[in-house]
Amino acid sequence: MTVSAHSHEIEEGLTFLPNFDAAGLVTCVATDVATGDVLMVAHMNSEALRKTIATGEAWYFSRSRNALWRKGETSGQTQRVLEIRTDCDQDAVWLRVEQIGAACHTGRRSCFYRKVEAEGGGAKLVFVDAERLFDPSDVYRK
Amino acid sequence: MTVSAHSHEIEEGLTFLPNFDAAGLVTCVATDVATGDVLMVAHMNSEALRKTIATGEAWYFSRSRNALWRKGETSGQTQRVLEIRTDCDQDAVWLRVEQIGAACHTGRRSCFYRKVEAEGGGAKLVFVDAERLFDPSDVYRK
Repeated sequence: MTVSAHSHEIEEGLTFLPNFDAAGLVTCVATDVATGDVLMVAHMNSEALRKTIATGEAWYFSRSRNALWRKGETSGQTQRVLEIRTDCDQDAVWLRVEQIGAACHTGRRSCFYRKVEAEGGGAKLVFVDAERLFDPSDVYRK
Repeated sequence: MTVSAHSHEIEEGLTFLPNFDAAGLVTCVATDVATGDVLMVAHMNSEALRKTIATGEAWYFSRSRNALWRKGETSGQTQRVLEIRTDCDQDAVWLRVEQIGAACHTGRRSCFYRKVEAEGGGAKLVFVDAERLFDPSDVYRK
């Protein structure tokens, strides 16, 4: 198969051919099916993808812990996956999820609880939707 | 500063300290402000971030072309950025954009025009929202 034929199959085909990076991962965006808000950006290896597709619950691969991880396995804040999509070059997936509680380990609904605003020639952050739904020190052992 | 104090500043501070990866990039998710749909997942280097914040138009860094890129500079399909957010560990940004036309180089509104569905023990793709808004062969020179 030529490069061009391969590229056409990736972009226009109906075979799922996830394009894992050198570390064996694809990027994954989870959005809240109710609001459309981005809850988190994380990664999946082939096993996390397989388990997510098979179970309808979100599994990820933690780069910092180098481990497969069922979302909510410690916190109870699971994600029920209503739809999975992949993008044109199949190196990213989008999950539309029902989030139980908070997606973020800081206790917020979404990991994206700060806006970036221009200030002078640079930028500053401003809290938005930053209310905590749980106290992380109650949920995660130190 | 200890690792823990640094981590606290990254997660709870109001200083924008983007955590670029080894290639100097952060992951960027662009969503359609009207629908909440994920339009694309791409990357930004510090210059792309700076220009996006300063101009209110989306700039990215193309890994395949190794070049800074103003979204729509060839296709005319620009993105007006209404809000920028960063996540807890500041290695990803979320842009809420007004997309002119199609975000995807294939001519679709979103790069995520295929669903992943379980089939047997594996998965298949199914087109969804896959109408082309332009013909890429008209827009991009071969």
